[in-house]
Amino acid sequence: MQSLILPRDVIAWTGASLRFLDQTALPAEERLINTSDYRVVIEALRTLRLRGAPLIGVAAAYAAALAANEHLAETGTGFHTRLQTSLSEIASARPTAVNLFHAVDRMRGVAESYADPMQCATAMERTAAGMHEAEAQRCIAMGEAGAVLLPDEGGVVTICNTGALATGGIGTALGVIATAVRAGKRLHVYACETRPLLQGARLTMWELARLGIPATLIVDGAVPELLRRGEVRAAIAGADRIACNGDTANKIGTCAVALAAHDAGIPFYIAAPVSTIDFTAPDGGAIPIELRGPDEVRTLAGIPVAAAGCEVWNPAFDVTPHRLISAIITDCGVLTAPLMAGISRLRA
Amino acid sequence: MQSLILPRDVIAWTGASLRFLDQTALPAEERLINTSDYRVVIEALRTLRLRGAPLIGVAAAYAAALAANEHLAETGTGFHTRLQTSLSEIASARPTAVNLFHAVDRMRGVAESYADPMQCATAMERTAAGMHEAEAQRCIAMGEAGAVLLPDEGGVVTICNTGALATGGIGTALGVIATAVRAGKRLHVYACETRPLLQGARLTMWELARLGIPATLIVDGAVPELLRRGEVRAAIAGADRIACNGDTANKIGTCAVALAAHDAGIPFYIAAPVSTIDFTAPDGGAIPIELRGPDEVRTLAGIPVAAAGCEVWNPAFDVTPHRLISAIITDCGVLTAPLMAGISRLRA
Repeated sequence: MQSLILPRDVIAWTGASLRFLDQTALPAEERLINTSDYRVVIEALRTLRLRGAPLIGVAAAYAAALAANEHLAETGTGFHTRLQTSLSEIASARPTAVNLFHAVDRMRGVAESYADPMQCATAMERTAAGMHEAEAQRCIAMGEAGAVLLPDEGGVVTICNTGALATGGIGTALGVIATAVRAGKRLHVYACETRPLLQGARLTMWELARLGIPATLIVDGAVPELLRRGEVRAAIAGADRIACNGDTANKIGTCAVALAAHDAGIPFYIAAPVSTIDFTAPDGGAIPIELRGPDEVRTLAGIPVAAAGCEVWNPAFDVTPHRLISAIITDCGVLTAPLMAGISRLRA
Repeated sequence: MQSLILPRDVIAWTGASLRFLDQTALPAEERLINTSDYRVVIEALRTLRLRGAPLIGVAAAYAAALAANEHLAETGTGFHTRLQTSLSEIASARPTAVNLFHAVDRMRGVAESYADPMQCATAMERTAAGMHEAEAQRCIAMGEAGAVLLPDEGGVVTICNTGALATGGIGTALGVIATAVRAGKRLHVYACETRPLLQGARLTMWELARLGIPATLIVDGAVPELLRRGEVRAAIAGADRIACNGDTANKIGTCAVALAAHDAGIPFYIAAPVSTIDFTAPDGGAIPIELRGPDEVRTLAGIPVAAAGCEVWNPAFDVTPHRLISAIITDCGVLTAPLMAGISRLRA
């Protein structure tokens, strides 16, 4: 009998290899991949078997450690030459993932600090594990800071996937929910399916089932009607980028959740590490919004669901204005209004 | 070369048969069905080849006329006996469509007024055509009343399908848009895809292309981000039921559009015939909301898009509170705030 695959199995270092969950197979199949070949990790990043900004960084660091181990067989300067090439390959796995570049830069720094291949490989393995652990610690800090804000019982709405599958730790918004439930709060999660890519339906509902947290799936447009029923006490989401005034870019559909919460008089929280704050962006207007291709909306699993060739506007993110955000839960504590003042203190 | 199928081809009486567009084949294929067998119409109603509350009523009336023609071959009391049976079969095509029952009741009344089979069949055909024409006239009245409210140029957001495919006329909300465009207004429609059944993506985008009206498809959650861009000047939707105070039940997702419009400071309109007003419902709380099955959300075209067996809350409609509605456009003129007073005058 196969043992139950849990969110903590999303990514793990075995000592000599990296074992991770193939997220493209979810929710239909729980497929673990175990590899000591960094090229397999690159392929997994390319094809979204591994996704979620923090998790991408962790996976890239482990890929670098795998590359170092592989190149130990080289003699002379061969180890460092080949390792640099491998690091460049890893850095090009995804075009725009900032966490990927940061992780590879960090691992390149470690590589350049050790002339001895064996010492270098050991340090890289230790650094990758440390980065994974730091990501997990940040999630725990957010969970503890945010859990007290959630109600003792009742419904909580969330959107997209912000759990272990996105972070390699307990998650951001989902980590706050999980921490509150572990502390004894009786919460029922309403997960928005999150069109167009359905991360809520495919990933969040899977994680919540594995965590044993009661959950119900809804279409994104159902939030106002759900809140009218009165059972939901809070809404919480993650963030892709936060501006200096608290305006927050997150998965498309987030602002609609915030508007519904505001109208219903329930709090709307953002949970995100401080690293998400863009101190160069004064407000949401300065955050670039990625526009993605039309076929994410026009087709589903290759099946046309719209008139062929019709024009589509498909922004990946939206900006929720700070006035709709009750608090931002970070790994360095909770920021409340005025958000700009709290963010400014974090910068200092 | 096949001639272009237009929205006006949704349903048409040929003189001896009913020709209609198979809406389940859209948008992949434009398939016309031509039949003199009322059972084919019943099957089309059952399988949603014909859908949309007003169109269901029109189709049921024509089905009754087809049945009368078929039973002319009977002798003695056979005609009326078999016609009554056929009318009962037509009434049971869909379980909850009020327009269906109203149409069959009307046709039964006609049947009972004529002893002579030939006179009866002629009267039923004339009545069905009259009901179709009346529905089309109501659409024209709404279009003329509402077109002046839309901006001279710019974006207009809509949700679900409210055009010819739903009414057999030019439509309600979509009829208002089409009338405004015909009057020279340069509008660009943003159609919400309308999860879970994607009527916006499948049907509205097809109609707008056929009408030559510029249109862009968006996911439902993208409305607030779209409005932040500032190009959209108004939002307009249909209605399934309107309470005495103006609270309006319409396809799930409508309230989220109204909230976004309200927050962005642009008008949100409802377009619906007076027959949509439920004078027995004092407010939205009195309108029952149909809950539909989980697989509409969990699967798409038979493909699982969510964790198998996960719990789903799938309301077909939501209630938009009257305070978010700028005006209700009816076939008897435009109602503005206070909506309750205008609705009360219509009742009197």
